[in-house]
Amino acid sequence: MAGVITLITDFGTSDWYVASMKGVILSRSPGCTIVDITHEIPPGEVVAAALVLREASSYFPRGTVHVAVVDPGVGTSRAALVARAGGFLFVGPDNGVLSLAMGLHPDPEVRAMERDDIMLEPRSNTFHGRDVFAPAAAYLASGGELSSLGARLEEWVRLELPALRRGTDFVEGHVIYLDRFGNGITDISESELRGLSRKGRLRVMVGGALILDRVHRTYAEALPGTAVAMIGSSGFLEIAVSGGSAKDQLKLKAGATQVVVQCIP
Amino acid sequence: MAGVITLITDFGTSDWYVASMKGVILSRSPGCTIVDITHEIPPGEVVAAALVLREASSYFPRGTVHVAVVDPGVGTSRAALVARAGGFLFVGPDNGVLSLAMGLHPDPEVRAMERDDIMLEPRSNTFHGRDVFAPAAAYLASGGELSSLGARLEEWVRLELPALRRGTDFVEGHVIYLDRFGNGITDISESELRGLSRKGRLRVMVGGALILDRVHRTYAEALPGTAVAMIGSSGFLEIAVSGGSAKDQLKLKAGATQVVVQCIP
Amino acid sequence: MAGVITLITDFGTSDWYVASMKGVILSRSPGCTIVDITHEIPPGEVVAAALVLREASSYFPRGTVHVAVVDPGVGTSRAALVARAGGFLFVGPDNGVLSLAMGLHPDPEVRAMERDDIMLEPRSNTFHGRDVFAPAAAYLASGGELSSLGARLEEWVRLELPALRRGTDFVEGHVIYLDRFGNGITDISESELRGLSRKGRLRVMVGGALILDRVHRTYAEALPGTAVAMIGSSGFLEIAVSGGSAKDQLKLKAGATQVVVQCIP
Repeated sequence: MAGVITLITDFGTSDWYVASMKGVILSRSPGCTIVDITHEIPPGEVVAAALVLREASSYFPRGTVHVAVVDPGVGTSRAALVARAGGFLFVGPDNGVLSLAMGLHPDPEVRAMERDDIMLEPRSNTFHGRDVFAPAAAYLASGGELSSLGARLEEWVRLELPALRRGTDFVEGHVIYLDRFGNGITDISESELRGLSRKGRLRVMVGGALILDRVHRTYAEALPGTAVAMIGSSGFLEIAVSGGSAKDQLKLKAGATQVVVQCIP
Repeated sequence: MAGVITLITDFGTSDWYVASMKGVILSRSPGCTIVDITHEIPPGEVVAAALVLREASSYFPRGTVHVAVVDPGVGTSRAALVARAGGFLFVGPDNGVLSLAMGLHPDPEVRAMERDDIMLEPRSNTFHGRDVFAPAAAYLASGGELSSLGARLEEWVRLELPALRRGTDFVEGHVIYLDRFGNGITDISESELRGLSRKGRLRVMVGGALILDRVHRTYAEALPGTAVAMIGSSGFLEIAVSGGSAKDQLKLKAGATQVVVQCIP
Repeated sequence: MAGVITLITDFGTSDWYVASMKGVILSRSPGCTIVDITHEIPPGEVVAAALVLREASSYFPRGTVHVAVVDPGVGTSRAALVARAGGFLFVGPDNGVLSLAMGLHPDPEVRAMERDDIMLEPRSNTFHGRDVFAPAAAYLASGGELSSLGARLEEWVRLELPALRRGTDFVEGHVIYLDRFGNGITDISESELRGLSRKGRLRVMVGGALILDRVHRTYAEALPGTAVAMIGSSGFLEIAVSGGSAKDQLKLKAGATQVVVQCIP
């Protein structure tokens, strides 16, 4: 029985690239279910793709094959990875795009995809999504053995997000992702805030400016057009503007804008 | 056997939000078929989503579960609805987004979704699409009983579109939806026009200005760049510009622009 | 057992048009797998759709039904086509949109779709994607006989791409497609270049200007921001800019920009 394969790419949806991958998958693994996570990753932005995969991957059934193809080094000597972690399978280039999702789980089994007989022939230098990753994913979704695809690796590229800075009365993090609503998702988790809020009232500074003297529970609590800071659906602090774009109004930059939550006893 | 689930949201397709819903659905209802109606509803535009669902829903097989998540009130006390109407199932917030599609059918059975044991745990305040509506839809698509999800409601939010105004020689309606081609779809039905056209020749005024002294049968009948008025594929009068955008050229506004069809004996 | 149906349209994904087609398909052919190739063809651009279908179609399993609806002549007397070529089935208007993909295979069997009893009733003048092509595709995907749909045709609209011009030391073609990365895909195939490169070093002129004195193997070989010419994943020469848009930087126009590869002995 064929399983579920998800796809994240930076290919967009206006050309034939994603469809070619799906054609290969359905040719090799008839009856499998293909789910588009997104194809709108900005070209070459490995970190954005890695974050999207980290957020989405665990909601799928165990056994799902997650394929991420944001691959500016296609055609160079970077390895093609196939892996198992937390009951999920992962397929993509060795540039960190899989690493944040795999990092949610202990002891991933990571291997190099080395089976030329499974790849498409001829194999292009520019489109390993179709020629290498889609065949590998179809093989795994049809019940093929991970261990038969190539040698086990001890080293692979791991993305490191910037660390939090913590003091007795504050935690300092960053906006790490901007979503299509212009919401800025930070790396400050709910449990960080829970620790702080036991000590007093919270206030929120973004890019050095005080924007709020509270943390909200819902978007609807704020007046239209005003800033909101709340624990979002991923369990991390989000900076939003009710009915507007925090990205535009607060000039948020993914991976750069500093966010500090301070407690006032 | 798992069925068909459709999705309408304002989440866009660039983030992980839609994929998280699909992951939950496929985890709870393996083998079901998920169809994206659209995720490009402008953020918070409940009326647009309700119209899209009204137009698309009846083409699907009976038993299809239609899920609409355009939900600016998420996290407030608004109810979550589950319903059956015309042999279709409906899932979404109680803000009117389901009401136009349900209104196509007599005697809908509308219930509050109250089963915490079916919802995701923990449940966020900001993403009921993933935590409440996706699990409810998967439950229904797998053959779960509607009546087991919560109490029957007699009242729910119904959107009311503005009424037509009719005279002996005219009918006055509005542009209610603008599609991606810039076509303006009105609330004036084919049968309204049939009544009028028995009495004489038709002419069409948009926003107070006479734009056409006829109603066309196909786009191709008009010269490129000129206005077209014809019965569209939904059975309602559409205002278009051949090879162009009526929205831009005629400054159409959804829910506002007045359209009058008059008959000249 | 229901098969695979692919869809190419210029309907976009923000309205209900594509979903209506999918609803019809799933009503008529339960359990079939629907794959979106793209719905972002610019409105009415038949050549772009024909090229996308040519590139994607052959990667799908034999028996796949490919549906292309870019149909500016909808409602006029143009025929609706159903066809078999190379083991694939094709459905779409007779305006050339299917012709480049069918042209990859010898001896296509092309028929007119004439079965009113299979089309939707009532049939609109503006949306044959839903009313004519989706029902025909569902019929074929469910194992219906092609020959039962209508009379065999000897003539249909075939798009002709401009011919290459060849000299002893050069080949001259054109940019025929611009993808979402701004890459210009030409009609100069790998085998054309192989012939030339046996005679000496290659150089590449675009729009009359020398842009490169070599042909690359990967995108990564070029400095960021500089031009790349390489055999792309379709087996044709592509003009790109590393980390940028060749369309913007080199002012490429699909169907117009001249590309010459010359060999210097």
